[in-house]
Amino acid sequence: MALIVQKFGGTSVGDADRIQAVADHIARTVRKGDQVVAVVSAMGKTTDNLIRLANDVSKTHPGREMDMLLTAGERISMALLCMALADRGVAAASFTGSQAGIITDTDHTKAKILDIRPDRLFEALEAGKVPVVAGFQGVSTERDVTTLGRGGSDTTAVALAAALKAQLCEIYTDVPGVFTADPRVVPNARKISKISFEEMLELAASGGRVLALRSVEFARNFSVPLQVRSSFTWEPGTSVQEEDETMEQAVVSAISHDTSEAKVTITGVPDKPGIAARVFREIANRNVNVDMIVQNVSHGGTTDISFTVPQIDLSAALSVTQEIASEVGAGTAYADSGIGRVSLIGAGMKSHPGITATMFETMAKGGINIEMISTSAIRISCVVRQEDVEDAVRLLHEAFEL
Amino acid sequence: MALIVQKFGGTSVGDADRIQAVADHIARTVRKGDQVVAVVSAMGKTTDNLIRLANDVSKTHPGREMDMLLTAGERISMALLCMALADRGVAAASFTGSQAGIITDTDHTKAKILDIRPDRLFEALEAGKVPVVAGFQGVSTERDVTTLGRGGSDTTAVALAAALKAQLCEIYTDVPGVFTADPRVVPNARKISKISFEEMLELAASGGRVLALRSVEFARNFSVPLQVRSSFTWEPGTSVQEEDETMEQAVVSAISHDTSEAKVTITGVPDKPGIAARVFREIANRNVNVDMIVQNVSHGGTTDISFTVPQIDLSAALSVTQEIASEVGAGTAYADSGIGRVSLIGAGMKSHPGITATMFETMAKGGINIEMISTSAIRISCVVRQEDVEDAVRLLHEAFEL
Repeated sequence: MALIVQKFGGTSVGDADRIQAVADHIARTVRKGDQVVAVVSAMGKTTDNLIRLANDVSKTHPGREMDMLLTAGERISMALLCMALADRGVAAASFTGSQAGIITDTDHTKAKILDIRPDRLFEALEAGKVPVVAGFQGVSTERDVTTLGRGGSDTTAVALAAALKAQLCEIYTDVPGVFTADPRVVPNARKISKISFEEMLELAASGGRVLALRSVEFARNFSVPLQVRSSFTWEPGTSVQEEDETMEQAVVSAISHDTSEAKVTITGVPDKPGIAARVFREIANRNVNVDMIVQNVSHGGTTDISFTVPQIDLSAALSVTQEIASEVGAGTAYADSGIGRVSLIGAGMKSHPGITATMFETMAKGGINIEMISTSAIRISCVVRQEDVEDAVRLLHEAFEL
Repeated sequence: MALIVQKFGGTSVGDADRIQAVADHIARTVRKGDQVVAVVSAMGKTTDNLIRLANDVSKTHPGREMDMLLTAGERISMALLCMALADRGVAAASFTGSQAGIITDTDHTKAKILDIRPDRLFEALEAGKVPVVAGFQGVSTERDVTTLGRGGSDTTAVALAAALKAQLCEIYTDVPGVFTADPRVVPNARKISKISFEEMLELAASGGRVLALRSVEFARNFSVPLQVRSSFTWEPGTSVQEEDETMEQAVVSAISHDTSEAKVTITGVPDKPGIAARVFREIANRNVNVDMIVQNVSHGGTTDISFTVPQIDLSAALSVTQEIASEVGAGTAYADSGIGRVSLIGAGMKSHPGITATMFETMAKGGINIEMISTSAIRISCVVRQEDVEDAVRLLHEAFEL
């Protein structure tokens, strides 16, 4: 008998029929002899509808009240799922984030989990019940309702799996697993059956949309094996786990792309210690996440620094950068929102030095200019023109025979 | 500076515009220098929509999960109201029943309030905030979310007013106050400016739909002055309070009617001690509320007993009555769902013995037959044919010059 956390996203519980299909699946798992803790998101468009209501009612959306509002969503889906389970003779009980003991900091709308005290879930399991837990939400150290931000339900599921010492955390979604590239761009992209935490982390960080980055970090830190599966086909999906011998020894596992970022460049930066630190400290103070940073060797005592930020944060990042550029006597700061990023990910890269060269050759043959390069031990990312992104993904998918 | 609890029902917060009107009113009250604790119901049709979803998803509706589902409704309205208040520069914070310290028993879907521990509301008031509390909901001694059943939001408001020692509890609704009769039946019915708790209790118990009976009981028991007002006109409404000198000394204050009940009669009941007790114990065991009971003098050792029950409980009440009738050797038990009840209510009745006679004469002149009679110190109720109810109300309203 295993303890399995099963997480169902918004499309998986999108309407009454989908909720019944999910209840059938949980009932099957329980009848096979396993214990299940379910984690659910809000039904399909519920969250969007609640946000629209908030916009209709007011211009100011205090975080505490947005969290109170949005957490109504999971409340509805989890209660309905418990009712559908009762219909199937499976005893179940729903738990809010607070009741499930998910303690967070007080950073409303993007709270971080500080602790999990799952006493009530253990009690429910001991009583033979399936606990159905609201994803995405918790209770703060100030006893206020909080939400975990984007990808929050995945994070709830993984964190609970860690706290409950579950054997497995299954993430049910609307795609059958993790693919070697986005199937909308590369029609013959292949489903990956196993991938390491590290590769999945790089994938999530570089534009892979299947799992939220935070949940993968959590899974890696607490060694929680993940299984990404479709709640429409119920087929086995992609296993995300510690790197092991049985894992496919592909040099390159997947190609990801991301067109949600923009590039900021400061020219003529004096090549003195502390200047770059000052730029990025100021940007961090405005709560902007900088992703890639590239600084080249200096010429004549000055250098250029380029970095990427989310498009939505571009104007904030540009204005602070321009201020600092003039303060430190640099040249100008300018933005470019016409960029995209293509990344190669593969644990095998560490021991295969030719990968970078093959990547660059492939791009050159396709006439694609590379504007920025950044690498980690198991990832190579190139910034290119946005209109070249999909071509690059297709060419690389072919070149590396994925 | 007074502390006022203001309760807004479902139609009062029915859409974005209504929520903004409510926020304007709370802001006005606060700017006048009073402290406000707001209590809100779910928006208009939210509860009906959630119940429809539950019916779509399942046939079994465990009480615990229905409560979890339905409490999403107030969560939405209270968060939106706080946002609208923030727009107006009024600091506010929403509180679930649980956060507001409303402790109930474990009787899901119709829980009773056991205790109120409003520490967080006091903290919010001290911090200069308007606490906006979810009506209709609480948390049970088992730490599960509960709802208070029909009229639950009124009960929340009155119970909070008692616990907070508020000077006044204002119930905002879609009618301007309590009327001498239902204005849909008697177009020239008059709004009552003051009414005693006892009269309001009789009125609520005999078909008056403005205030839930439980909330009036609570108000009387804890001496919480109520004000029933319209959230559409914001005019002064009806004050419900301890009987006092300044109160209108009308002999008859109001006429109410109720067509939601049915009558059950057992004929030929042996006139022995314990038989009636046995009938009503069995009915109580099936959770059916019996309202009027009439037993007449016996003839030849047997008597007839008639009583009224809510129409929805009629089949349950009838089947248990028939069982017992045969067990105790009575005649038959039969039902009549074509009845209605008309009641005269007035604190002045106690000292005016002619009221009953005038009532019966008025009915007789109108050709209306009286089937059952029951009285209290300040109320006389008659059961008549359902089709005669509205005529009776109009005739009595005229006869007593209301």
